[in-house]
Amino acid sequence: MTIDLQSGTRTGGVDAAAAAARRVLAGLVRAGDLSDADMSGIADRLNSVADDLEAAAPPLHDRLVHMWRGDGNTRHDPVTGPENPIAPPLEYAAADARTIEATTTLGLPYQGPPSSVHGGVSALLLDHTLGVANGWAGSSGMTAELTLRYHRLTPLFEPLTISAAQTSVDGRKIRTVGAIEARGETCVTAEGLFIAKHAPRPR
Amino acid sequence: MTIDLQSGTRTGGVDAAAAAARRVLAGLVRAGDLSDADMSGIADRLNSVADDLEAAAPPLHDRLVHMWRGDGNTRHDPVTGPENPIAPPLEYAAADARTIEATTTLGLPYQGPPSSVHGGVSALLLDHTLGVANGWAGSSGMTAELTLRYHRLTPLFEPLTISAAQTSVDGRKIRTVGAIEARGETCVTAEGLFIAKHAPRPR
Repeated sequence: MTIDLQSGTRTGGVDAAAAAARRVLAGLVRAGDLSDADMSGIADRLNSVADDLEAAAPPLHDRLVHMWRGDGNTRHDPVTGPENPIAPPLEYAAADARTIEATTTLGLPYQGPPSSVHGGVSALLLDHTLGVANGWAGSSGMTAELTLRYHRLTPLFEPLTISAAQTSVDGRKIRTVGAIEARGETCVTAEGLFIAKHAPRPR
Repeated sequence: MTIDLQSGTRTGGVDAAAAAARRVLAGLVRAGDLSDADMSGIADRLNSVADDLEAAAPPLHDRLVHMWRGDGNTRHDPVTGPENPIAPPLEYAAADARTIEATTTLGLPYQGPPSSVHGGVSALLLDHTLGVANGWAGSSGMTAELTLRYHRLTPLFEPLTISAAQTSVDGRKIRTVGAIEARGETCVTAEGLFIAKHAPRPR
């Protein structure tokens, strides 16, 4: 069986604009106030883009209905969404019937301790990955409880493997585990309890 | 005693560019492929800004040293950093000697379930807020374990109060709790165990 684990990045359109916006946000955090770039001019150029986007923005309700159409993966979420510049974005592959994984390298926008991934960013990536693993295993739901254990610092600028596997389904209770690894060592582990229910999609 | 709980947003400079970038990323997620905006042109304009930022980028090591100068709050982190477009950014106030809180309203880039905050984003905001509460109480460290409990959906587009308080310090073990509230109800609670050590700052 093959299913898509995320929606995938398209060529052009909003995905290309979001990819460019990812470069901008990385460039801004890299610059700080240590760059000779014309920040006032850059603010003007970015505000001009924002003005154009806002002038053409669809009504919020229409956009909510549109972004939640169908029963498949969404394109806007902050972890895998190709439309969302916050998302690295992660791209999962199935490792086996219950396990999925993604590889990514994170830069300065995701920093917590020096040269390390923010513990809350690790929590964000793991929460989402556990949820996708639930979908992959066939029983998904909403997070009820999530426990993160931080074993060592997770490095920026190096490939990370983020994996998750569903471990049990007991009535409406779904249990799922996950981990972030770097250099062959486990940096963060997660255990999640999910409840098999879903918020209604906007119509 | 008054201390700054975060670095604060400055007028102009990189902070103004980051604020403009926040408008761009919100505009892109609002647009998706349901907008009449010229996305190809917008991608070109954003790539042009990124090119200029990259051409003027300081060496990575210099930037790391610069961003971690001093012992105060940093300006780049993904929760409070005025330089970081991913950050809402949160601005904390002290509620009492052990408790801090911030109010923010989140939009589409932070969405998980329909019209609700992503559970992993709540984890990110709480992890950071617990850490700042530790600094405020006078004993800080790195996250060892973090448990999130999701009591009800956290709404987008409405004011959220994110609070945290240190509850105990036992040798190197620091315990801290926090919550996200909306409409006077508790949406998410967090318990954190922190260990009183710090990664070395780049020099």
